[in-house]
Amino acid sequence: MSDIVKVMAPPAFVRAGVRAMHGYTPGEQPAPGTRVVKLNTNENPYPASPKVVEAIRAVDAETLRRYPHPLAQKFREAAASVLKLASPDMVICGNGSDDVLTIVTRTFVPPGGSIASPEPTYSLYPVLAQLEEAKHVGVPWEKNWALPIDALLATNADAIYLANPNAPTGTTVPLGAIEELAKSFGKLVLVDEAYADFAGETALALVDKHPNVVISRTLSKGYSLAGLRFGYAVAQTEVVDEMMKVKDSYNCDAISIIAATAAIEDQEYAQQGWKRVNEERERVSEELSRLGFDVIPSKANFVLAGVPGGDGKAYYLGLKHQGILVRYFDKPGLRDKLRITIGTMSENDAMLGGMKQLLEKQKAA
Amino acid sequence: MSDIVKVMAPPAFVRAGVRAMHGYTPGEQPAPGTRVVKLNTNENPYPASPKVVEAIRAVDAETLRRYPHPLAQKFREAAASVLKLASPDMVICGNGSDDVLTIVTRTFVPPGGSIASPEPTYSLYPVLAQLEEAKHVGVPWEKNWALPIDALLATNADAIYLANPNAPTGTTVPLGAIEELAKSFGKLVLVDEAYADFAGETALALVDKHPNVVISRTLSKGYSLAGLRFGYAVAQTEVVDEMMKVKDSYNCDAISIIAATAAIEDQEYAQQGWKRVNEERERVSEELSRLGFDVIPSKANFVLAGVPGGDGKAYYLGLKHQGILVRYFDKPGLRDKLRITIGTMSENDAMLGGMKQLLEKQKAA
Repeated sequence: MSDIVKVMAPPAFVRAGVRAMHGYTPGEQPAPGTRVVKLNTNENPYPASPKVVEAIRAVDAETLRRYPHPLAQKFREAAASVLKLASPDMVICGNGSDDVLTIVTRTFVPPGGSIASPEPTYSLYPVLAQLEEAKHVGVPWEKNWALPIDALLATNADAIYLANPNAPTGTTVPLGAIEELAKSFGKLVLVDEAYADFAGETALALVDKHPNVVISRTLSKGYSLAGLRFGYAVAQTEVVDEMMKVKDSYNCDAISIIAATAAIEDQEYAQQGWKRVNEERERVSEELSRLGFDVIPSKANFVLAGVPGGDGKAYYLGLKHQGILVRYFDKPGLRDKLRITIGTMSENDAMLGGMKQLLEKQKAA
Repeated sequence: MSDIVKVMAPPAFVRAGVRAMHGYTPGEQPAPGTRVVKLNTNENPYPASPKVVEAIRAVDAETLRRYPHPLAQKFREAAASVLKLASPDMVICGNGSDDVLTIVTRTFVPPGGSIASPEPTYSLYPVLAQLEEAKHVGVPWEKNWALPIDALLATNADAIYLANPNAPTGTTVPLGAIEELAKSFGKLVLVDEAYADFAGETALALVDKHPNVVISRTLSKGYSLAGLRFGYAVAQTEVVDEMMKVKDSYNCDAISIIAATAAIEDQEYAQQGWKRVNEERERVSEELSRLGFDVIPSKANFVLAGVPGGDGKAYYLGLKHQGILVRYFDKPGLRDKLRITIGTMSENDAMLGGMKQLLEKQKAA
């Protein structure tokens, strides 16, 4: 094609709020086959249950030809059974928990409104707010990563988003604190439980008593299915009904519904994986502490660790040079730290070895 | 779970705009295995290319474990090659064209703004507007379903959404008319080409000259992949860049990227399917006309037909009673009509047979 009439970026017919945005920056994704130790995007180091792959291989052209079930009913039923919910109608499914978070934002946060979160937290929340022409209000965590209940309430936001375990710290707050927040705050409290499978803690019990509590989950981490894009939320039926109006009609594809259902039904397999990840997390945390890193006690499949000397970026780049990817956040309060995903034992050993090299270099300099 | 504290629906902490909504109503989806002739949701009657199923069967657990490519790069490259675009950067992919339309709406339509469309058209557009706290302004088609250019311009909307071929009429407007609209209207013109594969007409050529033209496409219809949820849009690179800020980071899953790429690369197979559907559409249109139906000449994989006597609902229910599903819209200007998806030859024969029975009953009454 020739004679392309170029427009100056960004074009004036783009919404002002979008023109001003930068968008969310996902972690680096090396091309398939690249030889790297990839500990930067919190993927599960172990493969999904063989039953998932089996279920996908059984998908036929007829299943692909037709529209999927608009509510992903099979998954809702499986999740309700596994989580012991009163009804599958308490579940809404999404194209990854990102889709669930977008649905939540569009359901509960009006344009011009606001979302409050303890900070630092998942860096997607401010982007979700911005897309809704809403504000994101960050409230610093209290000492030892305790929930800043009063400060959150004082924001008078339209919604509070709480990641538990939190990213990128891996810390959790107790159920009682979340309940106190939900009780005192009349509006939406979203508990983002993307990493809850590893923690073995959940706020699901709050949903029965508190209509304003919505729990979001994903199969990306706990079920090793980041490539599949499947998440869900649990809330009271009437609240789910409102979210249903906001989601795309067929937001989950037929294959992902089948695969996610197979995954959540194989609890035994998934739980074994969580146990192995948790054991490795404890080992990695101890090793890093021994090396002089300041490791925040984590219940997720990653750890946030302050580096000796405080130059997080230097360690990030040094590891990258060795073919080891971890996550560095160029943000206040995080520049002295790295977020390290827990990998397989040999991946973790490679990372620890890399750290030792960098430490020796640092000492020699 | 007991003692559920029930909230009155809809809860007050839900956004007012959402509380007031009804949401989009998708066509009926009978349970898998139900014996019906399903001509109500414009699915392609023929299965996807065998290469698609083959590609899906080759997906392994490692592909599922990792996040997919955030931009679905492989598909962008394949689409750019098939469509002869200057660059893959002119393509943005989505979780079905519904996701693409949501991205377009959130990129170009501010809260409080408006979307104009010729009417009747795809009933999702007003829902998209409502979710954005924007208005949808319907402008009646001109005689013979010609584009009401002046009336659309007079709306002074933030964006014009034009389905071409249009749903539910199946009619198309000439490229020259779309270009005139794009030239005179400084803001976004979305050409929704969900059914363009069957029509063999496209406005892709306008993208080079007009930065405000965005073309959306889907693999649901032309490539028999409604279950897969894969759509895309084509626009100038700078315009695509803005839409990228709005989409979820990983909005297309790894399997759908692989499958959609295999589908669009097998042009020969897809084109054979379009030809067969078009031949059946012509035969069905002639047969229905012969029976006294008022068939609007369609270029899509469905026809909109006025029923003899004008009671569309009676025909819809009469067919349903015979196990044949077609689409009835309870809306002004459409209550005397049915939208009938083109099926296989035997499905179409079953529908035509059903119509004959209803006609005879009507004559006897």
